[in-house]
Amino acid sequence: MIQTPYLLFLGDAPDALAAKVAQGIKDWRPELAVGQLRLEGCNADMGLADLTIDEAVKAGAKTMVIGVANRGGVISGSWKNVLKSALDAGLDLASGLHNHLNDEPELTALAQREGRMLHDVRVPSVSYPIANGKKRSGKRCLAVGSDCSVGKMYTALCMEREMRARGMKATFRATGQTGILVTGSGVPLDAVVADFMAGAIEHLTPDNEPDHWDLIEGQGSLFHPSYSGVTLALIHGGQPDALILCDEPNRPHMRGLPEYKAQSLELLRDTALTMAHIVNPECRVTGIALNTSAMGEAEAADYAARIEDQMGLPTVDPYRHGAARLVDALE
Amino acid sequence: MIQTPYLLFLGDAPDALAAKVAQGIKDWRPELAVGQLRLEGCNADMGLADLTIDEAVKAGAKTMVIGVANRGGVISGSWKNVLKSALDAGLDLASGLHNHLNDEPELTALAQREGRMLHDVRVPSVSYPIANGKKRSGKRCLAVGSDCSVGKMYTALCMEREMRARGMKATFRATGQTGILVTGSGVPLDAVVADFMAGAIEHLTPDNEPDHWDLIEGQGSLFHPSYSGVTLALIHGGQPDALILCDEPNRPHMRGLPEYKAQSLELLRDTALTMAHIVNPECRVTGIALNTSAMGEAEAADYAARIEDQMGLPTVDPYRHGAARLVDALE
Repeated sequence: MIQTPYLLFLGDAPDALAAKVAQGIKDWRPELAVGQLRLEGCNADMGLADLTIDEAVKAGAKTMVIGVANRGGVISGSWKNVLKSALDAGLDLASGLHNHLNDEPELTALAQREGRMLHDVRVPSVSYPIANGKKRSGKRCLAVGSDCSVGKMYTALCMEREMRARGMKATFRATGQTGILVTGSGVPLDAVVADFMAGAIEHLTPDNEPDHWDLIEGQGSLFHPSYSGVTLALIHGGQPDALILCDEPNRPHMRGLPEYKAQSLELLRDTALTMAHIVNPECRVTGIALNTSAMGEAEAADYAARIEDQMGLPTVDPYRHGAARLVDALE
Repeated sequence: MIQTPYLLFLGDAPDALAAKVAQGIKDWRPELAVGQLRLEGCNADMGLADLTIDEAVKAGAKTMVIGVANRGGVISGSWKNVLKSALDAGLDLASGLHNHLNDEPELTALAQREGRMLHDVRVPSVSYPIANGKKRSGKRCLAVGSDCSVGKMYTALCMEREMRARGMKATFRATGQTGILVTGSGVPLDAVVADFMAGAIEHLTPDNEPDHWDLIEGQGSLFHPSYSGVTLALIHGGQPDALILCDEPNRPHMRGLPEYKAQSLELLRDTALTMAHIVNPECRVTGIALNTSAMGEAEAADYAARIEDQMGLPTVDPYRHGAARLVDALE
């Protein structure tokens, strides 16, 4: 387990999107963040107190979380000095970077000497089984996206919050590095070996009480050629009872792929449902979650109403409007 | 590169299916197999000479290939003694097992001392990129299955043989351990990390001459909950121009999953094509390959005729009847 609370390291993040791990923690577990640490040139700001490492330790921080993607996948010299200072001052480190803290000899040597932990949350810590496809007790809801980064994690977290506020039994199940750092556990699905992807999701969402809901964090998209296999493993390992379609309106193309245009929500509904019915013939699409962060209030409301009319499904921006209607549809 | 020819180790294979790696080599590269080595209790037989290790060395063998799956994923004591004897006698070892020869300290120590090679073909030897989805030149045909182990590799190899006999440019592209041991190269897709699956297939099937065909070995099935994500990565990384539907009639259930019944060929056609059209709107289903090995001649011919009538597509057992009609449909 990763010790809390955290100091959020934003490094030299060129923009807010580069610091989306920190943003996720700030938005969903602000009580876990005692402050932020920014380097020269950082353009991201979580609105937290700017602390030095010593100040963070005094404020009770136990772990410094690397809340930012690193440029070119390299841990730079300026970063490394900060990471070493944190270890020296008594903090553990946690990271969801593709390159690992535990592959940096200077850091591992220092951590060992100081008795500190290096958490690479993108490294599977469990040897997952091959999926057996067996029906599990309890209920599961999965967010499926029209594209990558359209708000699947926020949707599942919004629904968990709403369900708990109603006294329902609900657990957000993290499948990516931000979700894992928000909740303290989960499966780093994009780093799991192909044959074990679906089995990892079965492991993540085990038998539960009949009225308990797992809210499974989606990954990728059935329509994104780079990551679609990960998405299908989530559907088949998750055996969802309910699917929420997630979309960010007006994307010019699929994320990172200028040649690929968005597909329709109707095709997303039909394709995801066909695949879900293989493992759970009772699965239904119960709602649509829009990421309207680029729209004004009126525009967002109009757009949601139009999609609701077009698709015949409760449609909201759960982060903006609340997830009540999505949860109503599950109840 | 793995040195040839091979001695095929069948171990204590409980049945022929357990030795399918050996069977694939025997069926497709019989000139590479000097003989077989079977332990007490082995129920598989390739029809090759039963040789001791010393006899195999005298017959020119350079590598002992583990041609059988190991029970419970453990390299047993009786196996290990044979593997050590092979190294002692001067043979390299090659394996497609999920657990690795190179993780066995006794074997690595002995191999190092004797100057022998341990080939784990299920370990990716390349750092694959994330798929970029860009269109490549040349043509690609992918075998997609109604289930695992229905004859996708044999279909692709039969088509390659037929196309080469006609003077067409064609390359079988291996994506599993048997295919890799048959051809000497390929991508062990089920062992690739999730984020890089589709990129590995792009890497395997690069730009080529406009009239060149890659025959891509399929894996898993869109309908098999344990492995479907691997299958979708093949479709999206492969960007196929043509799909061949592969089926073994009369399976009582999906392989290894008694709760899962077979889906229809119509659903396979529609689902695979929907997913292929994301990356290649021109993709077509051009034929159906049946594995009729459990049927008599007349029954097989009748069955193929019936499916051809039902689906309106050229339908053959390519291993039994030849792949001519499947290749005609590509030309």
